[in-house]
Formats: sequence, C-alpha cells, structure tokens
Amino acid sequence: MIVTVVEVSVKPEYIDAFIEASKSNHEGSVKEPGNMRFDILQSAVDAAQFVLYEAYESEEASKAHKETAHYKKWKDLVAPMMATPRKGTAHRVICPADRSKW
Amino acid sequence: MIVTVVEVSVKPEYIDAFIEASKSNHEGSVKEPGNMRFDILQSAVDAAQFVLYEAYESEEASKAHKETAHYKKWKDLVAPMMATPRKGTAHRVICPADRSKW
Repeated sequence: MIVTVVEVSVKPEYIDAFIEASKSNHEGSVKEPGNMRFDILQSAVDAAQFVLYEAYESEEASKAHKETAHYKKWKDLVAPMMATPRKGTAHRVICPADRSKW
Repeated sequence: MIVTVVEVSVKPEYIDAFIEASKSNHEGSVKEPGNMRFDILQSAVDAAQFVLYEAYESEEASKAHKETAHYKKWKDLVAPMMATPRKGTAHRVICPADRSKW
C-alpha cells in the first residue's frame, strides 16, 4: 500500500471552485482499480488550505491515477487556483495493517 | 466530523520505538466511541517522519481522545522521541461526505 498526503494551498478567491473540482476528482478516483481512499479535507484553521489523502493498494495503482481523465481534468482546472505549488508525500502504512480496514 | 492530521518528526534512533508505541495507541484509539479512523503512516522519503490521521465523528469525541489512558501513555512514551514539536491541524471533511465511507 501507498498513501500520498497532498498539501494544497489555494488562492482565497478559488476556494469554492477548488472544492467543486475536487469533488469530481474524488468521485472518479474512488472508482479506480486499486484505490482504497481518496479523502478531501479543508483546514478548520485556514479555509484556503486543503489535504488530499490518496490511498492505493500499490505504487502502480497510485501512478495510474495520474493517467486518468478525471485527474488530468482536475489538474488543468485547479492549476490557476494554486497559491503555492502542491506538495505530495508518499507514505507506507503502519496502521491499520489489516487491508480490510481500508 | 473532524479529522486531525498530525505531523511527527522523530529522532532517528527512536523510529522503531515510536512505531511500537503508536501501534498500541492505534489499537486503543480505534475502539473509542466516535472514532472513525486512526491511521499511522511513515514517510517513504524520510523514515523519521510520520503522519497520524485521526478521524472523529465530532469535536467532543476528538477532545475525549486526549483524556484516554492509551493517549496519555503514548504521549509520555513518545515525548523524548520528538525531534521537533508535533503539529496537529484540525480539518473538516469535504469528501467522502457519506459517513458510511469512514
């Protein structure tokens, strides 16, 4: 398994548009083979800060996400909305080790 | 719902001890009323960096976590292991909006 945690900082005027675009990306992503979760969170401290929590059963499945039509559409839509470049970090899972919990 | 994303930087010599302590904290936390997830991830880039992904059904349930015996034990055990102070950020959930997906 691989979980990529992506930190996103959006220009304040694009908050609603980013949420809309990201909901569509979520809907497509959770239907991908190998996707375990694709959560989208908004900071309670600063509404312009988001976290994407992208869990895949393998590195291959994670990479394949970037080849999907919904990802490419999202990437283009949100490009002008970024306040700073996105920062994604890949992680290995310590807990829960049980795959059925994902 | 509230999801707290906690960034943890551990002194390299404590990586294994931090994992052991955090597994116990995970086991206790997922049994708390109101807990939806309590994931523990290790960076694939730097093994001394961890993320705790703590999802609770309410702010009250999230706060109650810090009163549990397993949290207090973990907090004391890991205190000397920290390379820098932990940084926890509370988030609201955009996706999945469906509670059954948590």
